[in-house]
Amino acid sequence: MILDIINKKRLGKELTYQELDKIFNGYLNGDVYDYQMSSLLMAICINGMTDEEIFALTKIFIDSGDTLDFSDIPGIKVDKHSTGGIGDKTTLVIAPIVASCGIPVIKMSGRGLGYTGGTIDKLESIPGYRIDLSDEEILKQVHDINLVVTGQTAYLVPMDKAIYALRDVTATVSSIPLIASSIMSKKIAGGADKILIDIKVGNGALLQTKEEAKKLSELMIKIGEVYHREVRTIISDMNVPLGKSIGNSLEVLEAMDVLQGKEKDNNFVDLCYDLASDMISMGLNISKDEAREMALQKIKDGSAYQKFLDMVSYQKGKIEKIKVSDKTHAIKAPTSGVLKKIHALELGKISLALGAGKENMDDKIDYTVGIQLHKLVGDAIKKGDVLATLYVNKKLPEVPIDKIFTIE
Amino acid sequence: MILDIINKKRLGKELTYQELDKIFNGYLNGDVYDYQMSSLLMAICINGMTDEEIFALTKIFIDSGDTLDFSDIPGIKVDKHSTGGIGDKTTLVIAPIVASCGIPVIKMSGRGLGYTGGTIDKLESIPGYRIDLSDEEILKQVHDINLVVTGQTAYLVPMDKAIYALRDVTATVSSIPLIASSIMSKKIAGGADKILIDIKVGNGALLQTKEEAKKLSELMIKIGEVYHREVRTIISDMNVPLGKSIGNSLEVLEAMDVLQGKEKDNNFVDLCYDLASDMISMGLNISKDEAREMALQKIKDGSAYQKFLDMVSYQKGKIEKIKVSDKTHAIKAPTSGVLKKIHALELGKISLALGAGKENMDDKIDYTVGIQLHKLVGDAIKKGDVLATLYVNKKLPEVPIDKIFTIE
Repeated sequence: MILDIINKKRLGKELTYQELDKIFNGYLNGDVYDYQMSSLLMAICINGMTDEEIFALTKIFIDSGDTLDFSDIPGIKVDKHSTGGIGDKTTLVIAPIVASCGIPVIKMSGRGLGYTGGTIDKLESIPGYRIDLSDEEILKQVHDINLVVTGQTAYLVPMDKAIYALRDVTATVSSIPLIASSIMSKKIAGGADKILIDIKVGNGALLQTKEEAKKLSELMIKIGEVYHREVRTIISDMNVPLGKSIGNSLEVLEAMDVLQGKEKDNNFVDLCYDLASDMISMGLNISKDEAREMALQKIKDGSAYQKFLDMVSYQKGKIEKIKVSDKTHAIKAPTSGVLKKIHALELGKISLALGAGKENMDDKIDYTVGIQLHKLVGDAIKKGDVLATLYVNKKLPEVPIDKIFTIE
Repeated sequence: MILDIINKKRLGKELTYQELDKIFNGYLNGDVYDYQMSSLLMAICINGMTDEEIFALTKIFIDSGDTLDFSDIPGIKVDKHSTGGIGDKTTLVIAPIVASCGIPVIKMSGRGLGYTGGTIDKLESIPGYRIDLSDEEILKQVHDINLVVTGQTAYLVPMDKAIYALRDVTATVSSIPLIASSIMSKKIAGGADKILIDIKVGNGALLQTKEEAKKLSELMIKIGEVYHREVRTIISDMNVPLGKSIGNSLEVLEAMDVLQGKEKDNNFVDLCYDLASDMISMGLNISKDEAREMALQKIKDGSAYQKFLDMVSYQKGKIEKIKVSDKTHAIKAPTSGVLKKIHALELGKISLALGAGKENMDDKIDYTVGIQLHKLVGDAIKKGDVLATLYVNKKLPEVPIDKIFTIE
């Protein structure tokens, strides 16, 4: 019976809700083996899924665990998700901005497998920061300061956890239907009223082309319609890393600089304002232009940064104790010219080699290592200029300068 | 690295010899997990393989174990393989015919997963029959009587054993490249000079269409060319079961009837002559017509049957002790007319339900159960005629008479 279901998808046919339910819940119960599920996942990757199948799978994912209900908290709850990229610390900036506008933000973030840590790993680089808040603590904190960023509970979409771990080791991550149901099931089960998705495209991202990103976007909006949730998407570039720093502590420090208005006019700052404006616009039902004005104001008057400090202090983090390695290595320009490209994926690989990310679930992240960029795309470069500083702890990895930086 | 290889096949690209070697031998060594191999196998099922990939995979399979060398035995060694079907006991008939023509026959056969047992299971229904001959015993028996049918050694293509077991439980059996390299690697490693393949097509077979069968045929002939082995193929029908009996003891008894010339003019007898003629033609380098004459003669003069008796007695089997269950159930015609169809797959399912086959490797085969057909396609039927007898041991399964027999 299980083999009949896999076979049907192998032949490119549409699976029914009952068939999907049987095999996915069978997997969660241990009746379907890893090797059978991975075989099905590969068939889905190659042969795709119809909208009906994707809606069914999303429902099965959501039903696999608890669903949160924040309807007692006044205001429209807006959640945001990024498909992930190199140097992506947007949540650390956006969540405080949005909360400081009076919109309640309850963000459950994940750890990262990959080149750098996830949002939760980044926050844990603040010594003491608690990511295991109880439901009561979450509700109290939202009531008091409008803002919580904590870890995902095990009871939220356990199916996604199990399936994602398997996809990660079987080359079945790059499937638009699977990505869509994974993300949307978590956001819907997480109790959001409205959802903003930042879809990354480029060499440092899961998706390589704008066409794929558009497909994913359409699909997520459709899933949102089924569940009566407004979904907006932003498709953003991930050929170049976001901002100036990669690595956990370094990224927290950079986010704090942005919140204090110390950084302007780079791709990271621009994306933060773009995402924050959408979230505020959704949360307050105002235009995106009005929302952008508001976001700028909250940075200017210091209230966004204060919101961040309040959150960290509520969650027991000690900002003054954030550490970066004192062992550094300068990367110098081999030639003069204009910096045309910074290759996100290549920098991601170095980040991973330094220890800022993890390849396997058992690896431990080193919060103190990373990469600080001193020059950004468009800058004029003189031979010998320091392009970047590596913060190293163990061995210095090989750095293929020509692959990372294109100077012409 | 392993994920890069799986990903490449997911995208439909050609894998190099080195890549195939790394992942398949990694699997055999335990470095590549079941769930990774099944993901790759599904990608191969859907995206296919080039000829170069198939040649590489066949070599990797062969190199995974020992290769047998029978060059010391005089004569051309011809091996035969069937892709398997319902009621297929051809080896039991052909091997003695060919051996009685003076051609040495060393046949290593497999057990069956599926609706009925494999050749080895069938032979084991002869009480005492040994299938675990040593190399010395094999050589002595071939020297003495030209004929051995025994089990496969564990040292022959261990990769195929491991991969086949996984394909069987992951819905990745139906892949022409995988079928071709699995069969051909075993035949080449088994030391055959020439190879005859019986490719079954129909509802009771792995392949459903003649086009697939032709593709598989071309592919196996090409692989044979690479290894300088003449390969011939016969594409035969498997919409209707072969002959009159299904089930282990019953099939041995039917094969003995054919060897004694008691059965003529049915699809099983015809196929036996067809396959035997090809093997004799290849083994003696004579025309197929001459070979057919010879085969008929060997049945007529009793020497083929005597060869079978010699083999069984050399391998310690006691023919007089073959048992069929004494609990029987008659299936009667619900209507009068002409028998237009007997549905092979439906009969296979009943055979399995009776206990003649096995669904899992742990199941035990019941040699005494099975199905005896009393009417064949084309026969005139009167309402109430006994169409078939079931030999039952445990519970009588449900028999959907209208699905099995079409009387019009």
